[in-house]
Amino acid sequence: MAELVEVTDPDDPRLRDYRDLRDVELRKNLEAEHGLFLAEGEKVVRRAVEGGHVPRSFLMAPRWLDGLADVLATSEAPCFVVEESLAEQVTGFHVHRGALASLERAPLPSVEAVLDGARSLLVLEDVVDHTNVGAIFRCGAALGFDAVLLAPRCADPLYRRAVKVGMGAVFALPWTRLPDWATALTDLGERGFTTVALTLADDAVPVEEAVAGVDRIALVLGSEGHGLSRRWETTAARRAIIPMAPGTDSLNVAAATAVACYVAARR
Amino acid sequence: MAELVEVTDPDDPRLRDYRDLRDVELRKNLEAEHGLFLAEGEKVVRRAVEGGHVPRSFLMAPRWLDGLADVLATSEAPCFVVEESLAEQVTGFHVHRGALASLERAPLPSVEAVLDGARSLLVLEDVVDHTNVGAIFRCGAALGFDAVLLAPRCADPLYRRAVKVGMGAVFALPWTRLPDWATALTDLGERGFTTVALTLADDAVPVEEAVAGVDRIALVLGSEGHGLSRRWETTAARRAIIPMAPGTDSLNVAAATAVACYVAARR
Repeated sequence: MAELVEVTDPDDPRLRDYRDLRDVELRKNLEAEHGLFLAEGEKVVRRAVEGGHVPRSFLMAPRWLDGLADVLATSEAPCFVVEESLAEQVTGFHVHRGALASLERAPLPSVEAVLDGARSLLVLEDVVDHTNVGAIFRCGAALGFDAVLLAPRCADPLYRRAVKVGMGAVFALPWTRLPDWATALTDLGERGFTTVALTLADDAVPVEEAVAGVDRIALVLGSEGHGLSRRWETTAARRAIIPMAPGTDSLNVAAATAVACYVAARR
Repeated sequence: MAELVEVTDPDDPRLRDYRDLRDVELRKNLEAEHGLFLAEGEKVVRRAVEGGHVPRSFLMAPRWLDGLADVLATSEAPCFVVEESLAEQVTGFHVHRGALASLERAPLPSVEAVLDGARSLLVLEDVVDHTNVGAIFRCGAALGFDAVLLAPRCADPLYRRAVKVGMGAVFALPWTRLPDWATALTDLGERGFTTVALTLADDAVPVEEAVAGVDRIALVLGSEGHGLSRRWETTAARRAIIPMAPGTDSLNVAAATAVACYVAARR
């Protein structure tokens, strides 16, 4: 059972995991150095703990204690109980959903472990926006994908905003970083996956056609700005496009993922 | 040709359209009272002007002048030229894309005018998040929808963030507000549209089935939190669901829209 610890001093060093949550650069450093990540909101905190992540501590206003009592009962980590105004002062924003938890980052699994038994993968190259990464995890989970692989420069899916936008899907879907960007797609091919790159390339075929009859699929998605690197685009076994109205912009990467996952799920 | 006016005083009253862009409440009031909206970024500013919206003024750093020279050439509005640091001081954030424009809000067209010739509509009930509204417009435009109708409480698609996320799709797709929430869907039915509500209702059928064989379609989407109102859900001619993996959350409304538009475009 987590010990309830009332805290009234915003400078209390025990609250350091929760400081300045809107300062992306500061948070990246702090979270990397201390090997932690944050979960926000009752549902997401619950999913993080139930997903096997070990809490370092909880931070919540009194009114959130009841809703998470069963989760707190499973943990030995302290639960800091603070007024909402103090939570706001420490974190730097209004904590709508009241509950926060700081959790240990576990070592990432191997690619082998993540691929074990998987039939449908998402492979993200340089998706750098945390909102998009979270949205993509949520889509993948909802539409029946089994796992996610991230290129080295893809944004951190355990960053608070990604976790929140993804509604904790990052705790449900196995995922890891690809150790080697350059050989990633050929490696997946050798492991029996057909890599299908979403792209606007001239030789891309409509996504329904590209996924037809594919057993083990790796759907490959590029960055928000310029799409896939030339290397990944040309190395993928197939290039797929979502047919669009003439003269319009491409879809946002999260919207494109939703469509591609939907189509691939019906292959 | 827009007159170039160098401004060096951040309190210059001519910059008032551009103040405190991150203060949502203040902006809502200011924009409603003065009948204006803002466009941000070269591409979006260009689309706003080319879409027939009348500029009140432009605000840009010197390095953005060349890229928009042809747009400035078409306007009689002043172009305030400022250092980037001054732009930041006035607007309250770093203006990544440099160019801003303030434009007149034109009177909204009638529902009749918006529906004229349309075969595929998006109808948004209470989508209150500007990012989602922008993403939905972008999806609709990219996937071949013809128009958008908004219930009275739906967020403003001309709010800066919605315009930006939508990449200016709001200037390409005809749209208006529905005058009467209560009768909106039956009215659309009487005008020959089959209303298809996206919902998790028990009697919902898979979206592919729901849109099959429909000629004029109105795809109906509800709010982020609780989905459609009971009234709209039950009044719609058909209820459609995007089949999802068991035990997962529903898709975000923008992702659901992407899938539904894609499927409907192939009906």
